[in-house]
Amino acid sequence: MSEDLITLRAIGTIKSPFQDPVGVPIQPRAAQGVKGEIVLDPIYQEGLKDLEGFSHLILIYHFHRSGKGPLVVKPFLDDEMRGVFATRAPRRPNSIGLSVVKLVGIKGNILAVENLDMLDGTPLLDIKPYIPDFDPAENIRVGWL
Amino acid sequence: MSEDLITLRAIGTIKSPFQDPVGVPIQPRAAQGVKGEIVLDPIYQEGLKDLEGFSHLILIYHFHRSGKGPLVVKPFLDDEMRGVFATRAPRRPNSIGLSVVKLVGIKGNILAVENLDMLDGTPLLDIKPYIPDFDPAENIRVGWL
Repeated sequence: MSEDLITLRAIGTIKSPFQDPVGVPIQPRAAQGVKGEIVLDPIYQEGLKDLEGFSHLILIYHFHRSGKGPLVVKPFLDDEMRGVFATRAPRRPNSIGLSVVKLVGIKGNILAVENLDMLDGTPLLDIKPYIPDFDPAENIRVGWL
Repeated sequence: MSEDLITLRAIGTIKSPFQDPVGVPIQPRAAQGVKGEIVLDPIYQEGLKDLEGFSHLILIYHFHRSGKGPLVVKPFLDDEMRGVFATRAPRRPNSIGLSVVKLVGIKGNILAVENLDMLDGTPLLDIKPYIPDFDPAENIRVGWL
């Protein structure tokens, strides 16, 4: 089953202060205020129309420096092994990352953003508007965390 | 720039009641209570360890029946054309979908879930735990919405 191969192409690049995996914020609090830019491939610039009205964006990107890893991992600051799908670890069966960032402004194909927690040069796969209504409002449990 | 090609492989399949794009919930409210299953490829089952403690999951999946579309689109129930990155439209430069669903239970490689808004047979790319702390808490603006 699930033999489907899906080929994606980066739509741009994320510029962040982090040149090395060591030092990239693990907890969202540590990413607060970290500034950077999204350099969108100009061929997609028209797709940014109306985005400026949103305060926050969901970025979907490729963990380009993380290979596949084991299915159980030891999260940062944790003593136990956890299933990789119960973590946000970058080494996972498909190396896809997800972050919510603050949109500061857009000029042409360049987006100024804050609260970055990914490596400099990260290939961007998609931008979606962050819409709180799309998320569950109550009765949240966060398991081993 | 951005010539990187990224190849992913589905890790499983999402079973939902929706056989046809017409009728798939557009608004999250309409997806409330819609039941379905995730059939994970058994080779990844070990990665589900500890996931059961989380009430909600982020599913990242392939809009397998949506081709690429124009960069400006007319959203459902809207009269104006919007940039595709300011919408959740399935036809986008990389056909990646994102939904937050409720986890009901796990048996082996099968996850019972609720609040589904994707087509039956959708190829699953990743599962991440939903952690409210990872999302912005205040000063949210949702633009044209």
